Amino acid sequence: MIALCDVGPRDGLQTLPRIFSLDEKRHVVTELVAAGLRHIEAVSMVNPQRVPQMAGAEELLESLPDMPGVTLSALALNRKGVERALATRVDEIRFVVLASDSFSRRNQNMDSADSLAQFAAIAPIVKQAGRRIVGIIATAYGCPFEGEMSARRVAALADAMIAAGADQILFADTIGVAAPADILRVDRACRDVLDGVPWGVHLHNTRSTGYASLFAALERGATIVDAAIGGLGGCPFAPRATGNIATEDVHYMLDRQGVATGLDHDRLSALVAWLAERVPDQITGQLARAGWFPVRD
Amino acid sequence: MIALCDVGPRDGLQTLPRIFSLDEKRHVVTELVAAGLRHIEAVSMVNPQRVPQMAGAEELLESLPDMPGVTLSALALNRKGVERALATRVDEIRFVVLASDSFSRRNQNMDSADSLAQFAAIAPIVKQAGRRIVGIIATAYGCPFEGEMSARRVAALADAMIAAGADQILFADTIGVAAPADILRVDRACRDVLDGVPWGVHLHNTRSTGYASLFAALERGATIVDAAIGGLGGCPFAPRATGNIATEDVHYMLDRQGVATGLDHDRLSALVAWLAERVPDQITGQLARAGWFPVRD
Repeated sequence: MIALCDVGPRDGLQTLPRIFSLDEKRHVVTELVAAGLRHIEAVSMVNPQRVPQMAGAEELLESLPDMPGVTLSALALNRKGVERALATRVDEIRFVVLASDSFSRRNQNMDSADSLAQFAAIAPIVKQAGRRIVGIIATAYGCPFEGEMSARRVAALADAMIAAGADQILFADTIGVAAPADILRVDRACRDVLDGVPWGVHLHNTRSTGYASLFAALERGATIVDAAIGGLGGCPFAPRATGNIATEDVHYMLDRQGVATGLDHDRLSALVAWLAERVPDQITGQLARAGWFPVRD
Repeated sequence: MIALCDVGPRDGLQTLPRIFSLDEKRHVVTELVAAGLRHIEAVSMVNPQRVPQMAGAEELLESLPDMPGVTLSALALNRKGVERALATRVDEIRFVVLASDSFSRRNQNMDSADSLAQFAAIAPIVKQAGRRIVGIIATAYGCPFEGEMSARRVAALADAMIAAGADQILFADTIGVAAPADILRVDRACRDVLDGVPWGVHLHNTRSTGYASLFAALERGATIVDAAIGGLGGCPFAPRATGNIATEDVHYMLDRQGVATGLDHDRLSALVAWLAERVPDQITGQLARAGWFPVRD
């Protein structure tokens, strides 16, 4: 069973030139749920002065209706972000530790080791509060400043996060450089460390390799897949990072692979069309334009 | 060893809104060779009244310099096209038979069976002339009019083309619908039939699955890969068909997979930039914009 998490409301919107209103953000989340998504990364508990697109996280979460069966996630980069998330209704907190120290200092103002120490301190608190804690290892496949990342370093981070209580591990290709061989390389290094802990991938299609890497990850046993509606996305602190793999295109590929997702293509396409009216140049997903195949009656 | 064939001068240019001049076409071919390509599908021996972009095939071939070690290919859809190609310098003729009868009637004005009969008649003549004959099975993974194709039908076509003397078989995803599972499905059906005959794939990235399908094909032993510089491409008779997988993006993916191609990224990027000046909306390859990784000194 593949758990597809739409990170559009967070990763998708966080770098857009246009700031979405509370109503618009709510529309995105509720339409994703209406289209069948059961896991949404809805907010980032980041300083809105640094990422104005992510302001109003608490208000958005409060304004959402009850959505039975839907896991709502918040991204957090530090202890303060986790505390903010714990004061809301989110079911899951996704905490980012970067494999690259250079990137970590720019993105979260601390070294990787400090970030990991914060994770270790807060993970038990999140679990005690009855929420799921997910460890995201960002720049797992490469950093714009440091280049390729050591798979052993990534494995050491995964090991430490699992020891601290991470319920799941996500490997994030923050800047969209991974190819299938990179997925395999990191997976080989992490195999013993993961030891049954569910893991997944967060991929950007910056160099056209995102869907190939997804296929490779699924072949290696990944069960959590991040994607963003419309293929929106980027990273505020990564030069030239571009869109996530697109939810609607992942839906198509998984369908052809025989993987049931429960998603509704027409409903997803309608949401892509709605987004395209607002940020026409930012849509990188292709399904809404190309159409389903075979054409459904 | 992977043989990467750039089909940009043919598949890339054949649907562009702008018709390239002879000089421009020659620039594309010679720059591809300068960037390291050793196999170019340079022309289509199609009726220029049906596809005006492809007019002047003979003139283009005559105007090209000697290019030692480079295999020049011509596409042909019928006997007349093959005869035209044999009167030129091309090293290889790629003959298209469509798995879909409906598409075959629109694209080449005959049924699949008639097309196959023409192939069987001309293949020995091509070989006797000392040229390579390649059988392309188009719409191998799906047809816009008939939907999914039977893998057994595709295998029967491959079998007949090999019996007639095909030196290589290419499976073409003419309308960009294949996912890795489709590649595997067709490969399973064709495994016994191929029996050592080199085979490859011609993929369009219309639904974001092109590079994943390429990865799957390489894992199954494909050794011939079609791609088009800039990810240009389409099919004049296929609604909403879009670009081929892009040569420069395939180069990146293969490089990360540890597959040597001998290509020069900077030179490819320069050609993409040249194309982007002429057909800015048609570039679907991402590498020229995203940049190589890791950044090379």
